[in-house]
Amino acid sequence: MPEHFADRLIAACSTKGAPVCVGLDPVYGKLPQAVACEDPAAAIEAFSLKVIEAVADYVPAVKPQMACYERYGAAGYAVFERVVAHAKEAGLIVVTDGKRGDIGTSSDHYAAGLLSGHAAGDSLTVNGYLGTDGIQPFIDTATARGAGLFVLVRTSNPGGDAIQSCKLEDGRSVAQMVADHVNQAGKSHVGKSGYSLLGAVVGATKPEDAADLRERMPEQVFLVPGFGAQGGTADDVKACFKPDGTGALITSSRGVIYAGSGSDQPWTQAVANAAQQLRDDVASILA
Amino acid sequence: MPEHFADRLIAACSTKGAPVCVGLDPVYGKLPQAVACEDPAAAIEAFSLKVIEAVADYVPAVKPQMACYERYGAAGYAVFERVVAHAKEAGLIVVTDGKRGDIGTSSDHYAAGLLSGHAAGDSLTVNGYLGTDGIQPFIDTATARGAGLFVLVRTSNPGGDAIQSCKLEDGRSVAQMVADHVNQAGKSHVGKSGYSLLGAVVGATKPEDAADLRERMPEQVFLVPGFGAQGGTADDVKACFKPDGTGALITSSRGVIYAGSGSDQPWTQAVANAAQQLRDDVASILA
Repeated sequence: MPEHFADRLIAACSTKGAPVCVGLDPVYGKLPQAVACEDPAAAIEAFSLKVIEAVADYVPAVKPQMACYERYGAAGYAVFERVVAHAKEAGLIVVTDGKRGDIGTSSDHYAAGLLSGHAAGDSLTVNGYLGTDGIQPFIDTATARGAGLFVLVRTSNPGGDAIQSCKLEDGRSVAQMVADHVNQAGKSHVGKSGYSLLGAVVGATKPEDAADLRERMPEQVFLVPGFGAQGGTADDVKACFKPDGTGALITSSRGVIYAGSGSDQPWTQAVANAAQQLRDDVASILA
Repeated sequence: MPEHFADRLIAACSTKGAPVCVGLDPVYGKLPQAVACEDPAAAIEAFSLKVIEAVADYVPAVKPQMACYERYGAAGYAVFERVVAHAKEAGLIVVTDGKRGDIGTSSDHYAAGLLSGHAAGDSLTVNGYLGTDGIQPFIDTATARGAGLFVLVRTSNPGGDAIQSCKLEDGRSVAQMVADHVNQAGKSHVGKSGYSLLGAVVGATKPEDAADLRERMPEQVFLVPGFGAQGGTADDVKACFKPDGTGALITSSRGVIYAGSGSDQPWTQAVANAAQQLRDDVASILA
């Protein structure tokens, strides 16, 4: 059996000094001059690879946003594959941010491609609106491959409230109901660390929800986007952790990858410094 | 301005004789001997292109399932692009079944790739769990390109109930609440036909819900998967239509594309016959 995803992730966070993740969301119009070229897919590839090299010493994980690569079709998808491979070679844990989800047979195809196939990261974000039989194929493949999953529970965008905050007749919100399903589905997949391979996406901009969700999902690692540019602050993310400082992976994207913008340093140095700062900021929250 | 998606779709359904759609869900292990080869991506390409040619005279639309192509990474994604292009050249309306959805900036990237970029179909299925600001970029791009969208409201898989049937404190189910959001978001994007570019996915295996959803979403075209192999019958889909026979697009996948299995006919002839039968079956329901 391959090593359990949550055990690998927690060990990597300990080695690097903090549970942080750099989001790779490359946008052609925002790239540094140094990687600019006429082919957008080639430019985001050069940028992504250099970001990976700049941050690899400071963070345990990166989260490539598939949409940024898929924007350029098959050529972009090939770039995505090479970015995933490069990050894994650099010793980073790859959280593929694809938010996939479908009925069972189609989820099985996505799982085959994104967790064990040509573009296999270490984990994948998943949308659970289709229910547990849409998630089960991802769990099956992840179990076999030592991979992990993060199901969307509470997202960091303002409009998520319209769906996720709706109250059910039993008093739970939609997000709480999804959280309970995720916790239940993950119970038979818990590693030595006490965490399941089935994690949850819990946005950093909803601190009032985080403490409650932490209680509902004691075996879930929270993937916490929205730190930095999306408005999440250090205090906002505290509630995502257990008292022992485990249980969440804090993600920052624009605040790290575009740190070179307006800086006097070489851009890759600015990115490395921002990754180090992210690590130190989160480590100090947990100290 | 490009022609409105719903107007184009309804005209195409009228021309072909019924509002039906063939789902392209090619699975390597199920392909006819005639297209078998050692490269799975090449095999599903050959199969998909021949299915398109076989059904193009009988149906107005095809629905490629992205998961089946993404299973094979960038090579599969390139196949998907060629399948979309081939279907458009054959005069078919392409419903890309990608079930994408993210926060606004990432949804914008998906919309750029799948509605106006390298792999642009005529429409895309979208997951609305992230709320209306996650859907708006798709609407903006679709408006500019004469494209359409189908938001997941009620899916045809058994496990969808666990999320979508939950009752809110105001008495609506989660699916009904999502339906009301979709209807509201689509109101300013209605074409001459009376239908919005923003449609809804409503599974054929939930007839008890269909009539209610039809009332809640008078401007939405329903994309109805699950006819045939997933268990949906003719009676199940009736409630998805308005009395004038418009308002739904009935999809069958396995029942058409694998019709050659066990048949004495050449497999492409069996597929063509099954597409014709699908058209005639749905036309007779509406007669």
